[in-house]
Amino acid sequence: MKYSDDELVSGALSRDFRAIARFITRIEGGHAGARALASKLRRPAGRAHVIGVTGSPGAGKSTLVDHMARTFRAQGMEVAILAIDPSSPFSGGAILGDRIRMSLASEDRGVFIRSMATRGALGGLAKATLESVHVLDCAGFDVVIVETVGVGQAEVDIVRTADTCVVVLVPGMGDSVQIIKAGLMEIADVFVINKSDREGALALEKDLLTLLSLAEAVQGQWQPPIVKTVATSGEGVNDVVDAGKRHRAWLESSSQGRKRRVRVVSQTISALASDWIAQAALKGAEREVERLAEEVVSRKSTPLEAVEALVSWANKGK
Amino acid sequence: MKYSDDELVSGALSRDFRAIARFITRIEGGHAGARALASKLRRPAGRAHVIGVTGSPGAGKSTLVDHMARTFRAQGMEVAILAIDPSSPFSGGAILGDRIRMSLASEDRGVFIRSMATRGALGGLAKATLESVHVLDCAGFDVVIVETVGVGQAEVDIVRTADTCVVVLVPGMGDSVQIIKAGLMEIADVFVINKSDREGALALEKDLLTLLSLAEAVQGQWQPPIVKTVATSGEGVNDVVDAGKRHRAWLESSSQGRKRRVRVVSQTISALASDWIAQAALKGAEREVERLAEEVVSRKSTPLEAVEALVSWANKGK
Repeated sequence: MKYSDDELVSGALSRDFRAIARFITRIEGGHAGARALASKLRRPAGRAHVIGVTGSPGAGKSTLVDHMARTFRAQGMEVAILAIDPSSPFSGGAILGDRIRMSLASEDRGVFIRSMATRGALGGLAKATLESVHVLDCAGFDVVIVETVGVGQAEVDIVRTADTCVVVLVPGMGDSVQIIKAGLMEIADVFVINKSDREGALALEKDLLTLLSLAEAVQGQWQPPIVKTVATSGEGVNDVVDAGKRHRAWLESSSQGRKRRVRVVSQTISALASDWIAQAALKGAEREVERLAEEVVSRKSTPLEAVEALVSWANKGK
Repeated sequence: MKYSDDELVSGALSRDFRAIARFITRIEGGHAGARALASKLRRPAGRAHVIGVTGSPGAGKSTLVDHMARTFRAQGMEVAILAIDPSSPFSGGAILGDRIRMSLASEDRGVFIRSMATRGALGGLAKATLESVHVLDCAGFDVVIVETVGVGQAEVDIVRTADTCVVVLVPGMGDSVQIIKAGLMEIADVFVINKSDREGALALEKDLLTLLSLAEAVQGQWQPPIVKTVATSGEGVNDVVDAGKRHRAWLESSSQGRKRRVRVVSQTISALASDWIAQAALKGAEREVERLAEEVVSRKSTPLEAVEALVSWANKGK
């Protein structure tokens, strides 16, 4: 079935899963009209609670997220899951991700699940994520869970735009130095120690507590709780959901929470505006880019000189 | 000692380690004059072989890179290592990274080692990395190894700008699905199975071979070799260095190799030009950004509306 623009908008607003899926496909593909279309959605009455979940590959994030979705559903809430997947040359990325995902939650027709991938440039996924979250928010989901595959800078940038950031760790996969190195201390609102029946769970918890105690205590600041889970059996998942709700209440009710939200939103809108501005400036530059790249490969110029030439090209276009 | 601009340029060109370190500090800090200064360096006669090394945290990348540096040194080459580190709230990031790094290579005064971190926006690290590589290239290093901490999209974007991408895996930390999910199949020129004396090394190699066989074979295309190492003892590191050299020879001598370089350079200069253009457009927007963010948090507008308003603000400034 082909949806007209109006059908996509009205379908999204009435929480029609197929219309929402099509909408996100357009966003993901960088479809020209998708942004304008997303803007057409009327402002939501109540905003969704956006929960970001990140952690090393293999930490059990998908299983945890599935159980979280089931818990929220059992409490009568509408839940959407966005799984952010780097693309691969073999699959078109998102399709593969959906196939691999043997999801508990997907058996429940009440949960919208979607993998997203982008082959594009820096910031592409962050933009597509924000636009998709906007669609899901307008569609009236109470909870939107954004799950990333890795723990790199781009993933951290995506997850930090959520209201609540959940960082999933497992015993034995990284010591405290690795946690610092991945930049996870800075963004975590809730720590989850998954596979906590494994050896090393206590040691990991102790490391975390030590690291948390090193952070400067600010009056009224949120103290990230550490929750232990065994996601495969669902153990502890209720506590993760509760911690998320407490964090959201703090964001909504305290002055420190409000400050944090303003800071996060500022970063998000700056990053996205940067992306849009650059895309507009470099529209139609493909041939010039290739010419400049040929010069660099032939050693007639350096990469930096090529960048400067391209910026000049964009400025002349104005 | 304080360096004048001219001293930084002449110091870098004469491979003065302290001058180079200062130069990179300016780049890292987004120092206003750093870009202009980097442009002042005269074009290098022979370009360095830039080798990117990525892989999961805990895969033993630092140890491998140290041994690679020693091997290149033993062959009479000048080597620089750039370790790309997300910053942390506790340390200023780069300083911590340098302290943690109990480097073999650092005992050898002939190897320049530098950690880099950026607290900035998307693309900040990619930009700083390219500028720093340019400085090291002009300084006459034969080999520049760029090592990342994580395997997220931003790290992949940084590493793919290298001439040769080395992807480090370890048995038991991720199966073939994880390799695909992290987008590593697409960028790897050389696969390293580190800690290959561990159980599961053969199974990992078999998985890799299966995945590689799924990729469409293109006449004259590079076939990524799989090299097994035990980095802590140095075993197999010679083979990694050899594979890197063979890959570079292929890049330089074959038409497919040249195509690949043009594609990579095109992506790099587009990403960096985008970043510069956006930075210029949003200069001085801090107050407007905060005002718009306050509106979003008060639910007077949505994040997407705020982004549109900010783009309009930037366009009016022209």
